[in-house]
Amino acid sequence: MLVYGRNVAKEILKSNKKVEKIIIQEDFNDDSVNSLIEKRGIRPEVMTKREFLRFDKYSHQGIILYIEDFKYCEIEDFIDDENSKVVILDHLEDPHNLGAIIRTCEAAGINGIIIPKDRSVSVNSTVMKTSAGALENVRIAMVTNLNQTIKKLKDNGFWLVGTDMENSVDYREIDYSGKIALVIGSEGFGMSESIKKSCDFIARIPMNGKINSLNASVAAGIMIYEVIRSNK
Amino acid sequence: MLVYGRNVAKEILKSNKKVEKIIIQEDFNDDSVNSLIEKRGIRPEVMTKREFLRFDKYSHQGIILYIEDFKYCEIEDFIDDENSKVVILDHLEDPHNLGAIIRTCEAAGINGIIIPKDRSVSVNSTVMKTSAGALENVRIAMVTNLNQTIKKLKDNGFWLVGTDMENSVDYREIDYSGKIALVIGSEGFGMSESIKKSCDFIARIPMNGKINSLNASVAAGIMIYEVIRSNK
Repeated sequence: MLVYGRNVAKEILKSNKKVEKIIIQEDFNDDSVNSLIEKRGIRPEVMTKREFLRFDKYSHQGIILYIEDFKYCEIEDFIDDENSKVVILDHLEDPHNLGAIIRTCEAAGINGIIIPKDRSVSVNSTVMKTSAGALENVRIAMVTNLNQTIKKLKDNGFWLVGTDMENSVDYREIDYSGKIALVIGSEGFGMSESIKKSCDFIARIPMNGKINSLNASVAAGIMIYEVIRSNK
Repeated sequence: MLVYGRNVAKEILKSNKKVEKIIIQEDFNDDSVNSLIEKRGIRPEVMTKREFLRFDKYSHQGIILYIEDFKYCEIEDFIDDENSKVVILDHLEDPHNLGAIIRTCEAAGINGIIIPKDRSVSVNSTVMKTSAGALENVRIAMVTNLNQTIKKLKDNGFWLVGTDMENSVDYREIDYSGKIALVIGSEGFGMSESIKKSCDFIARIPMNGKINSLNASVAAGIMIYEVIRSNK
């Protein structure tokens, strides 16, 4: 995974994350970053400004790092936990939303996050940056077939809770005890039809305005804290 | 206020928002935008690519619009409402967070939002874009002195609820009936010390992880929905 920028570089170099390669522009002169690179005993590759143009689409501030890819886990890693609370992201697109949701899941103590492999944001450098360190402490599984995964969850005793305005009940009236898989729909299209049909409950966050649209990570935050509410 | 990009242009031109000026790059050829401009009876200013370079820091897609500035209101517009629920943003910095919080306040039916004039994000084009139309339906007051405003709120019967981890009570154990002003701290520094001292309650969102940091707009969303919870 390629990451960039002085702040991210500092954070990574201070962590125990494996750094595979560092490329700096010839005029890079951030002393605190340079001393961290030295401490790690890494010899960075130095490029001319002209060579560095290939990274122009990143706001790199003269430094690029290649680090080990994020390690996804398997759903088996968290579905056996008693009272397991799982969050399924149904084709989310915005990396900032994924990052914010990862932070919420970490803080709330969610057992695992499930994302589909296709047509979905995955853990990239923006997600890493937005999740503010929480990424290291959450389990994320990337699955090929979301419907099959949901079947497996249900076979394992999970109740599936979706979020939508139609055919729904007030989110405060649902019993979230036991194993719960909470589905968060995509920013533009909400939940997929097939997943909606699999849901045991559809939760509605009551809205009193005219526009009535919540940011996906905010809606996820409200729902996640409701799911763990009854647990404590 | 300057706004930019094809999608925003379309949205604005379809609305009844006053457009003061439109500037397009000589090679701009989006038919749907052009027909909307024509419908409005506006003659856009056409600039060469070279002249357009001055807008290079915006991802403008060849179109810039000047629209009327956002109209802030006065706190008097919403503090007399019975059971008024108000959100105070204590020096928030990120326009995406402000936009997301505006959406949440609109959906939750919050009576008004208060932001300080200095060292704070204000309603700019990014906020407009992120708030997804909700901006039109919320009241936002911009105040010169947050501490004086808070004194006024208290004199008017408001209870001040802050959010912090220290010296705090579980956010679910606070009585939010009556007039409530909820303070959301800044992304980096939380609430100001002086405001913290003015709070009648400090609410804590319980966290079970290691990093335990919520995105500001997610934390605001959880708190705002808790404040309105007891109202319904």
